Amino acid sequence: MTTNALHSFALGLATTDSAENIIEVYYPKPMLNPAPELVAGIAAAVGYKGGNQCVKLTEKQLEQIEADAANPFDQSVTAAIRSSGRRVVATFLATDSVPSSVGEVYLKLHLLSHRLCRPHAVNLQGAFGVLRNIAWTNEGAIVVEELAARQLQARAEGRTLDVMSVDKFPKMCNYVVPNGIRIADTARVRLGAYVGEGTTVMHEGFINFNAGTEGTAMIEGRISAGVVIGTGSDLGGGCSTMGTLSGGGTAIISVGKDCLIGANAGIGIALGDRCVVEAGLYVTGGTKVSLLDNEGELVELIKARELSGKSDLLFRRNSQTGAVECKSNKTRIALNEDLHSHN
Amino acid sequence: MTTNALHSFALGLATTDSAENIIEVYYPKPMLNPAPELVAGIAAAVGYKGGNQCVKLTEKQLEQIEADAANPFDQSVTAAIRSSGRRVVATFLATDSVPSSVGEVYLKLHLLSHRLCRPHAVNLQGAFGVLRNIAWTNEGAIVVEELAARQLQARAEGRTLDVMSVDKFPKMCNYVVPNGIRIADTARVRLGAYVGEGTTVMHEGFINFNAGTEGTAMIEGRISAGVVIGTGSDLGGGCSTMGTLSGGGTAIISVGKDCLIGANAGIGIALGDRCVVEAGLYVTGGTKVSLLDNEGELVELIKARELSGKSDLLFRRNSQTGAVECKSNKTRIALNEDLHSHN
Amino acid sequence: MTTNALHSFALGLATTDSAENIIEVYYPKPMLNPAPELVAGIAAAVGYKGGNQCVKLTEKQLEQIEADAANPFDQSVTAAIRSSGRRVVATFLATDSVPSSVGEVYLKLHLLSHRLCRPHAVNLQGAFGVLRNIAWTNEGAIVVEELAARQLQARAEGRTLDVMSVDKFPKMCNYVVPNGIRIADTARVRLGAYVGEGTTVMHEGFINFNAGTEGTAMIEGRISAGVVIGTGSDLGGGCSTMGTLSGGGTAIISVGKDCLIGANAGIGIALGDRCVVEAGLYVTGGTKVSLLDNEGELVELIKARELSGKSDLLFRRNSQTGAVECKSNKTRIALNEDLHSHN
Repeated sequence: MTTNALHSFALGLATTDSAENIIEVYYPKPMLNPAPELVAGIAAAVGYKGGNQCVKLTEKQLEQIEADAANPFDQSVTAAIRSSGRRVVATFLATDSVPSSVGEVYLKLHLLSHRLCRPHAVNLQGAFGVLRNIAWTNEGAIVVEELAARQLQARAEGRTLDVMSVDKFPKMCNYVVPNGIRIADTARVRLGAYVGEGTTVMHEGFINFNAGTEGTAMIEGRISAGVVIGTGSDLGGGCSTMGTLSGGGTAIISVGKDCLIGANAGIGIALGDRCVVEAGLYVTGGTKVSLLDNEGELVELIKARELSGKSDLLFRRNSQTGAVECKSNKTRIALNEDLHSHN
Repeated sequence: MTTNALHSFALGLATTDSAENIIEVYYPKPMLNPAPELVAGIAAAVGYKGGNQCVKLTEKQLEQIEADAANPFDQSVTAAIRSSGRRVVATFLATDSVPSSVGEVYLKLHLLSHRLCRPHAVNLQGAFGVLRNIAWTNEGAIVVEELAARQLQARAEGRTLDVMSVDKFPKMCNYVVPNGIRIADTARVRLGAYVGEGTTVMHEGFINFNAGTEGTAMIEGRISAGVVIGTGSDLGGGCSTMGTLSGGGTAIISVGKDCLIGANAGIGIALGDRCVVEAGLYVTGGTKVSLLDNEGELVELIKARELSGKSDLLFRRNSQTGAVECKSNKTRIALNEDLHSHN
Repeated sequence: MTTNALHSFALGLATTDSAENIIEVYYPKPMLNPAPELVAGIAAAVGYKGGNQCVKLTEKQLEQIEADAANPFDQSVTAAIRSSGRRVVATFLATDSVPSSVGEVYLKLHLLSHRLCRPHAVNLQGAFGVLRNIAWTNEGAIVVEELAARQLQARAEGRTLDVMSVDKFPKMCNYVVPNGIRIADTARVRLGAYVGEGTTVMHEGFINFNAGTEGTAMIEGRISAGVVIGTGSDLGGGCSTMGTLSGGGTAIISVGKDCLIGANAGIGIALGDRCVVEAGLYVTGGTKVSLLDNEGELVELIKARELSGKSDLLFRRNSQTGAVECKSNKTRIALNEDLHSHN
């Protein structure tokens, strides 16, 4: 069986450009490590012989898949897809190697946002180069090269063609809204974000792809690509976590459980559990920090990156001396129950 | 007359989930303390006997209301609603008690955004628990539990189902745009915001429910739930006002008249009139502040919360000593006339 | 020839209010300094006699323009416009004087966003007073005075009238997306922005009208009206550039080439080339700065505005003394190639 050890599989509906190149794919039920018997019927129908492939299905192949009474694949999906009259694709990933097609990248982004893979668990190397630059509109995805003509046509025909985003990555919520979350402004969470159950992303929050939250969290700040936030943590309004894609350094940032990063604050280091960064304070790796003992006496002057990942720390800027200080955090952070119990 | 002393009343158009539960209501003309004669005809038609109720109207009741020539209720509203073939509700609030239904919460949010009630003037206790988590889409409100099926169906039928927000609160401007305002990105102002005449909310501005501005204001920062900004004040880009729902303390923040909070600054204390917080400075209640006299001499070292609500103060961080200082503000803040005279 | 020396010209499709006043215009191919022969045929057809005019075209004039085989104006535009059955306008600007009509302001905003004029190169004085306050919806532009009735009607008819913005300026991308850019959330870039080829505007980025970037740039912060960012520069998440419209001073801010403004930082002064402002630091004109030599010794204590526009500077706040310091910047800033090579 060539489908014995598949990394992942999904049936999807694709959008193409005018030259029939696939530019985005919606996979309603992506599967990680699917049971071979789930995929065997479809693999046979399309003649899948192994490797990583995104196969366009013919009308006949779709009929064969649907007619296969023994095919245990979700019938609600195949029926809807079958009837769509749209470009249907089957994407088989034998291994988690560097993605080479739009269909592959989209499957991996779906795996993340469906919470089937945690951030960093799939290989997305080179994804920027594989993805096309798309105008995301109320009439669907349009490659930027074809947009101007479509805009003129829509206007001439009296329609409003609303261009919501011009980006390689779409917004997650048009593909999947995992259970138990709220996202006040969906434009700010990319497909490929991992949004843990119990997470609220407020209007000022942001989550990039391959980043996210592990569980209950209040996100009013920005989670850069690659950053993961632990359960029970609170990112205050407009706070920043430094990413590695642009401007930041090479260290991958994470935030542990039950942390609070204050409004307009920021971190260029990882935080352990139960840490607090005072509102308005930006701690980069190179920030020199006065480490204080419980009596407030100076223990040591060290660079913040030496404290990276440590727990129970409180970072603040002394409002009289201007010195950035770090002491043991004894304040327990608890998220507002009322806000979080009704997702 | 049971409608003698109504707190509020409105006719509305409701969206329901597939089980016919009301999930949101649009009230085109909500009324605070309506004159009894305005409501009497409708109350009679639906058999209202008192208390707080959100009543679904039958076809026959609607006919009766419209046929009642003596009914002084706005005929443009009743006619449009009557012809809609949609779920119509009449919501009667005898008292401003804790809301127990979606229709009640929505009426109170409407009262705020129609400027019939100021923030804190209606009881919204427990609103989070009453409201459903909704996907706000270009095809209307959909409860999150029903979204995935709708997304698959829309895609299969070739439509773009755009999920703009997944939240308990919708955006205000899809319900009402009160006169004399601009809101550059409506996704950032929730229904239940009180946006004063003459207010401009720029792209980076944000206003939560039960919060807002009293009049002319330039809002490029975030107004958290419960916070009210006085006339003539300017919230700089990305500035923060600490709320009480999450992360902040228990003190309710307000900002007086003619204040300026600089870009990327923030406050965890209330400001009186004509105060300035320098760009980039976050003043929390616990910030120790050097209070200076007119000659710049230190008068006293105090916690910022002792200055909460006081007028004519300028907060800055001394750029040489790093100390947070407060002195009397002699600079008059005037909003740009050109920007504000054409709302 | 009255069209000898035209400043600019365009054919457009206009939206009107219910009184037939033009409230916005879409110009698919605006022209700066058009060759007289390009415009002569249209000028003759509409009887243009000179000056700055926005002329509504009659059916007969449109026929005449299209029938004119010698007319070298872009036929794809005239054909689409001709067939639209919508309000067509021809806007002739003989000179770049103060705009007096909506059609004129929109032509100038288009010239900027089509990169035909750099920021500050066209006269937009008084534009706020000329433009109407518009609800930008999925059913097109609606003047705010007519919105409430349209909302009631749409709801009654079962449609979702989505109000995306209430503003005088629309978002750029619904008019033009110049080549080689990405804008993750188009709600945050106004028509009239000049977005250089190679620019990525992330979700937290913002560009006002009459402002922009000269070329490759990563914009995760806010570019205020009038501000121009040089090639190769990086504006970190949530950073602020102080504008002159509101709150800021009167100095026009610019940023040179290869600069980095850190996340949540801000500037109230101009930067030359290869400057860095540390994350979280706001430098205003009045900030007192310790100018350091290469050995870190204090050279001079000066106001930041005296350093305005100078190159190779690094601004930081000493994390132990709280003093704002400036020293020579020896770190080369290079944008992430992978992110920028695929626009």
